[in-house]
Amino acid sequence: MIIAMKPEATEEQIQHICDSIIGIGYTPHIIRGEERVVIGAIGHGDGRDHLQGLISAPGVADVVPISQPYKLVSRELRPMQSVVKLGDLEIGGPEFIVMAGPCSVETRDQLMETAVAVRAAGAQVLRGGAYKPRTSPYDFQGLEEEGLKLLAEARSRTGLKIITEVITPEDVEMVARYADILQVGARNMQNFALLKRLGSAGRPVLLKRGLSATIKELLLSAEYIALNGNHDIVLCERGIRTFEPATRNTLDLAAVALLKEISHLPVVVDPSHGTGKRSLVRPTSKAAVAVGADGLIVEVHPRPEEAWSDGPQSLTTQGFAELVAELKAYVRLESRYLN
Amino acid sequence: MIIAMKPEATEEQIQHICDSIIGIGYTPHIIRGEERVVIGAIGHGDGRDHLQGLISAPGVADVVPISQPYKLVSRELRPMQSVVKLGDLEIGGPEFIVMAGPCSVETRDQLMETAVAVRAAGAQVLRGGAYKPRTSPYDFQGLEEEGLKLLAEARSRTGLKIITEVITPEDVEMVARYADILQVGARNMQNFALLKRLGSAGRPVLLKRGLSATIKELLLSAEYIALNGNHDIVLCERGIRTFEPATRNTLDLAAVALLKEISHLPVVVDPSHGTGKRSLVRPTSKAAVAVGADGLIVEVHPRPEEAWSDGPQSLTTQGFAELVAELKAYVRLESRYLN
Amino acid sequence: MIIAMKPEATEEQIQHICDSIIGIGYTPHIIRGEERVVIGAIGHGDGRDHLQGLISAPGVADVVPISQPYKLVSRELRPMQSVVKLGDLEIGGPEFIVMAGPCSVETRDQLMETAVAVRAAGAQVLRGGAYKPRTSPYDFQGLEEEGLKLLAEARSRTGLKIITEVITPEDVEMVARYADILQVGARNMQNFALLKRLGSAGRPVLLKRGLSATIKELLLSAEYIALNGNHDIVLCERGIRTFEPATRNTLDLAAVALLKEISHLPVVVDPSHGTGKRSLVRPTSKAAVAVGADGLIVEVHPRPEEAWSDGPQSLTTQGFAELVAELKAYVRLESRYLN
Amino acid sequence: MIIAMKPEATEEQIQHICDSIIGIGYTPHIIRGEERVVIGAIGHGDGRDHLQGLISAPGVADVVPISQPYKLVSRELRPMQSVVKLGDLEIGGPEFIVMAGPCSVETRDQLMETAVAVRAAGAQVLRGGAYKPRTSPYDFQGLEEEGLKLLAEARSRTGLKIITEVITPEDVEMVARYADILQVGARNMQNFALLKRLGSAGRPVLLKRGLSATIKELLLSAEYIALNGNHDIVLCERGIRTFEPATRNTLDLAAVALLKEISHLPVVVDPSHGTGKRSLVRPTSKAAVAVGADGLIVEVHPRPEEAWSDGPQSLTTQGFAELVAELKAYVRLESRYLN
Repeated sequence: MIIAMKPEATEEQIQHICDSIIGIGYTPHIIRGEERVVIGAIGHGDGRDHLQGLISAPGVADVVPISQPYKLVSRELRPMQSVVKLGDLEIGGPEFIVMAGPCSVETRDQLMETAVAVRAAGAQVLRGGAYKPRTSPYDFQGLEEEGLKLLAEARSRTGLKIITEVITPEDVEMVARYADILQVGARNMQNFALLKRLGSAGRPVLLKRGLSATIKELLLSAEYIALNGNHDIVLCERGIRTFEPATRNTLDLAAVALLKEISHLPVVVDPSHGTGKRSLVRPTSKAAVAVGADGLIVEVHPRPEEAWSDGPQSLTTQGFAELVAELKAYVRLESRYLN
Repeated sequence: MIIAMKPEATEEQIQHICDSIIGIGYTPHIIRGEERVVIGAIGHGDGRDHLQGLISAPGVADVVPISQPYKLVSRELRPMQSVVKLGDLEIGGPEFIVMAGPCSVETRDQLMETAVAVRAAGAQVLRGGAYKPRTSPYDFQGLEEEGLKLLAEARSRTGLKIITEVITPEDVEMVARYADILQVGARNMQNFALLKRLGSAGRPVLLKRGLSATIKELLLSAEYIALNGNHDIVLCERGIRTFEPATRNTLDLAAVALLKEISHLPVVVDPSHGTGKRSLVRPTSKAAVAVGADGLIVEVHPRPEEAWSDGPQSLTTQGFAELVAELKAYVRLESRYLN
Repeated sequence: MIIAMKPEATEEQIQHICDSIIGIGYTPHIIRGEERVVIGAIGHGDGRDHLQGLISAPGVADVVPISQPYKLVSRELRPMQSVVKLGDLEIGGPEFIVMAGPCSVETRDQLMETAVAVRAAGAQVLRGGAYKPRTSPYDFQGLEEEGLKLLAEARSRTGLKIITEVITPEDVEMVARYADILQVGARNMQNFALLKRLGSAGRPVLLKRGLSATIKELLLSAEYIALNGNHDIVLCERGIRTFEPATRNTLDLAAVALLKEISHLPVVVDPSHGTGKRSLVRPTSKAAVAVGADGLIVEVHPRPEEAWSDGPQSLTTQGFAELVAELKAYVRLESRYLN
Repeated sequence: MIIAMKPEATEEQIQHICDSIIGIGYTPHIIRGEERVVIGAIGHGDGRDHLQGLISAPGVADVVPISQPYKLVSRELRPMQSVVKLGDLEIGGPEFIVMAGPCSVETRDQLMETAVAVRAAGAQVLRGGAYKPRTSPYDFQGLEEEGLKLLAEARSRTGLKIITEVITPEDVEMVARYADILQVGARNMQNFALLKRLGSAGRPVLLKRGLSATIKELLLSAEYIALNGNHDIVLCERGIRTFEPATRNTLDLAAVALLKEISHLPVVVDPSHGTGKRSLVRPTSKAAVAVGADGLIVEVHPRPEEAWSDGPQSLTTQGFAELVAELKAYVRLESRYLN
C-alpha cells in the first residue's frame, strides 16, 4: 500500500502516518520526492482495510493499493490452469465445452425437444432455468422444483450434464440435488450470503460476472466461494452494462483473455445475454473461441418466438446445430477439440 | 406495445404478427407508413413477455413498449405522495428525515458515542450495519446478531429509530425483530428472493438503487416488495457506477426529482456512498435537500481514521452536527422542517 | 510515479528500471516489500510519458502516477478562487450568474423575444447557438454568422452579455468579434486544435465537460487553454453519459463541488442538457446553487414545442422567470446574490 | 415516429398533436388503446426534429422514433458490401487488411525500422501519427508536417500505403497530400466541421468510434462524410469507455458484427487502443477476425519501452510478425486471405 501525502503535509502528519502503519503491523518506508512525501506500507496480513482508512488522516492525499486483494483464484499464487470436473467432463481442459438450452424450463416437451437437439448438435451440458430472477414481478418466475425434476429427467434421457441457476442460499441444497453445476446469475454475483453457502454446496459453481462488476470484483466473488471451501469455480463473461443501447449488454471479450492471464480458473462466455440479439450469437461465439474461452453457454429454444423469456436472443435448434458445426474449425485452431 | 415491421416484410409476415397478437389476447392495429408497417398491440394483461417475444418472428424489426411495467409504485396509479411511518416518525411528510451513524457497528463504545452525538445534532434515525456485504471476503463482515443487539440498546438509550441492512431472506425475521426499518443494499436491489420475503416482513423497507440499476429497474424492485404485500417502501439514491474514478460513485440527484415525479414513494439520498469523499458530503447533502429529497442517510464515525469500513466517506460527529445545522435553512426553503 | 515490480522480478530487471529512471532524469528509490519491490521515481519535469512507458519493461507489474498532471488550473498551485470578467460582470465572485436563451438562434423575433424576457427575469448573459454541432447531418446546423449578428443585436437592445459556441479553430476569430465569452461544447472538449487556438482568442472561454470526460480530463483540457495564454476559463458540468436512459445525461453535481475543491476556476451548471427534461430543470438548478456552482446556463424558448432543437428541455420564458425568482433564496443561503 | 399520449390526455390535446403532425407534413394515425392513445406520424422528409419537439406539447408522454436517421451508410438502402480502394488495395473485399506501425512518428530511424518490419510481416498499410491529440498539453504533440514527410518516405521505400490522423479541418488538405487514407480519431468522431471538410478531401477516411459513441452516432458521423460527397469510409471499433479499469477501454467486438449487419461500410478493429495492454492484442486480434472484421489497425514499435506514446499497448516488431503468422489460419476460416 502506498500512502501519498499532500505537498503541504507537515512532519507531524507524516510521523502520525508512520506510527499508524506500525500500529497496524506494517513497516513504513518514506520516500521524499520533490513535490511530496510518499510512504510505502510494507508487510502482509489483514490490514488493508485499516491502511485504506488512513485516507482520512490529516495530510494524506491518496492511498493506493499495489497488490491485488484476491489470492486463491489468482495465477500468481497458482500458475497451473484449473480444471473443473463434472463427472467425466472437464471444463478448462482440452475439450471445448458447450452448454445449451432454453432460458427457462417451460414444459416437458419444450425441454426434452431442446435437450435431444442440443445433444445431437454436440453440446455436453444442458442449461435451463427453474428459478428465474426477473426484473419485473409480473414476468414468469420459473417452475421451481418441478423444473429441476424435468432437468434431471432430461439428463437421464440424453446423458447431458445439467446446469441451472440458484438464486438464494436456502435453495442451494435442493438445487444441488438435481444439478451437476450450479449457476450464479449476474444479479447475484455479489450476493455474498449465497456465495458463502456455495462454498459447501458440494457442486461446482459457474459464476457470472455482474452487470457492472469489474474483473477484480468478479475474482473477489470467486474468492468468497473458494475461501469457503469450494475451489471448483468456472467464471462466465456475459456482457456488461454500458451506455450502448444497440445490444442488450456489451460483451467484454478482452476480459476473457485477461481473466485467463491473471486467474487459473476456467472461463466461459455467454453470447446470448452478452448481445441479446440472435444474429450476433454466431459471430461472437466464434470470437469467444478465438479469444481463448474454455466454453460457451448458449440459449436455444425450439420456437424462440414462443419462448416465455429471452426469445430474441435464443437460437433455434437448427441454428444451434449450424453454430456448433462452424465452431469446430475455430476450436481446432486453439488446439482444442469439440466432438 | 408497438411492433415495427422491417421495410421488406411481407403481407404474410404481417398477418402472422396480427394472429399472434390475437393469440396472446391483445388486439392488433395496423399503421401502414411510407417506409414500413407498424402494428399496435392493444389490451392489457400479462402478455408483455409474449409480445416482446415477437421480435423473433420473421419480418419484425423492433418491439417497443409504450407503457411502464410498474403499477403499484407509480404516481400515475396513485397520485398522492406516500408517507412511511416508523412509529411516530413519518418519512415523506413535512419533516425532513436524517438517518446517521457508522457504516459498521464495531463496538458498544463506538456505537453509543455516535448515537448520542447524532441524536444531539438532530438525527431521527440511527444507521449501522450488523451484516456487511463486503466486496472482499477478507474484509470485516459485521458483528451480526451481536450488532443488532447493540443497535437496540442504542435505541433504548437515545430514542432514535434504527435502520440496518438485511442481506439474505433467512435473516429477515431476525433483523425485523431489532430494526424499525430494514435496509436493502445496492448489491441486493435485484435479490428477488430477498425482496419477496420483505413483502411480509412487517417492517418498512429502505431500498437502495443498485450500482448500475436504471430508475425503471429500481421501481420494479420496489414493485416486487409492494406486490408481495408491503407498501411501506422508501427509495434511496446512493450513486451509480460510471467511468469517473474521482468519486466512488456518481450521485444521480436528478434521479431523485424524477422519482418524486413518477412514483409516490419517499426518496432519500446517501451522500456518503454517493461520493465516497468526506469533503463532498456537505455540498451534496445541501443539493439533495434542494432537489427534493425527503431525507438523508449519512455515515458518521467518532474517529473516521480508525473506522473498520468506509472511513474516507464518514463525517466526524462534529462535522455531522455542523452539517445538520447548515441544512436547516435549506430544508425550510423546501417548506419542510428539521428540528 | 511509482513502479510496482512483479513478485518474480529479478534483480537485473529491478536494476534496469532504476537505470531507466535515471536516464529520464529522475531518481529511483527502492522499497523492498514482503511480496514485491516497489520503486519510486522522484523528480519533476516532462518525463511522465517516458516513465509510464516502463510498464512495457520486463518485470514491471504496474506504473502508478502520484501527482496530477495539471498545474495551472489546480488549486494546489493557486489557492485563490479565480474570477472571470465579462466587462463589468464577474463569474466566480459573489454574484450568481445566470446565462439563458435558446438552444439555437432561429429568427430575429424568437431571439429578441427571448432576450427581453430573460433579461427581465434576471439573467445577465444571453446564450444562443449560431454554429450547432448536431449528431445528424439532417438536423438544423445553425444560422452561422447571421446568427452571430442577431446575438450582437440582442446585446445592443438588452445589455445582456453574449455567450455562443465555437466549433472549429477557423471560426474563433469571427465568433470572438461578436461574443463576450466563447463556449466549447461537450463534443469539442478534446478538440485540442480548437483549445490551442482559444489560448489566443482574447475572450473568456466556457469549457463544457465532455460526455464521457473524467474530471481530470476536463482540467487537462482547461490546462491546454491556459498553457496557450488564456487564463479566463469557466468550467461547465452538463451531465455525463451513463447507462441510464430516463434522463438525457446524468448530471454530476458532486463534480461541481469537487472541481471547486481542486481547481480555482469558476464552475457553472447546465441543467438543460444535464437532464434533457423540462420538469427536472427547476429542482436541479436549485441543487446546483446548493452544491456550490457559480452560475447556471439554461435553455429558454418562447414556444419550446416549436423549437428547432432541444425543445423538450427548454423552459418557457415564464417558467424561467419563476425559476430565477425561486433561486434567489438559495443563492442567498450561499452568501451570494442574484438581482 | 410514434407519439404516446398520457393516460389522462384530453381529446383537445390529441387533436392538437394531430394538427401539428399535419402541419409538419406528415399524416397522423390514431390508435386508441385501453390505457392511452398512441399516434403514428406517417411520412418521410426532414420533420424528425419537429416531430420530436412534440414531446413538449401538453398531454404527450413520449415520442419514439421507429426508423433510423442514417440512410446513405445503411444496408437497408444499399445491401451490397462496400469496398474502399487505396490504389490497388481493397478494404472490405476478400483480402484481410492489416495496418500497423507506431502510435507516433518519432524519428526517421524508428519509422523506417518499423515500416520495413511490418511490411515483411505482412502488413499492407503503415500507420503513424504526425498530429497527436493528447489528453495532456505536456505530452508529445507530434512532428506535424515533418512526420508526414517521413511517412511518405516510408511509403517510397516499402510500398506500404499510409494512414495517418488529421485533427482539424485546416490540416485536411495538407495531410491528404501525403496520406492514402485519413484517420479521424475517437475524440474527433463528432468534430462535425472536420467531418464536413473530409467530404471533399479526395481521400478515403477511417472513422474511429468515439469513446462514448453509440453505434447509431458512429453511423451518423459517417453519414456526415457521405452526405458531403465522400463515400469511401471505413469504420473502426477501438473500444468504448466503461466503468472497468482493468483495460484501457472495453473493446466492443459485437459492435463489429452489428455494424456489418446494418451498414455496408467496411469495419476494422484497433485492438491496441481497444485493450491498452500488449498481452491482450493477440487474443483480441484473433477474435476480431472471427467476429467478421475486414481488417486490423495495430500499434507496433521496435522498442515499446522507449516509445514516446502508447508503449504499454504496442507490439514489438517480432511480436507483430508472430501475430500475423497466427492470424492467417483464422482469416482463411472466414474465407478471406492475408498474404
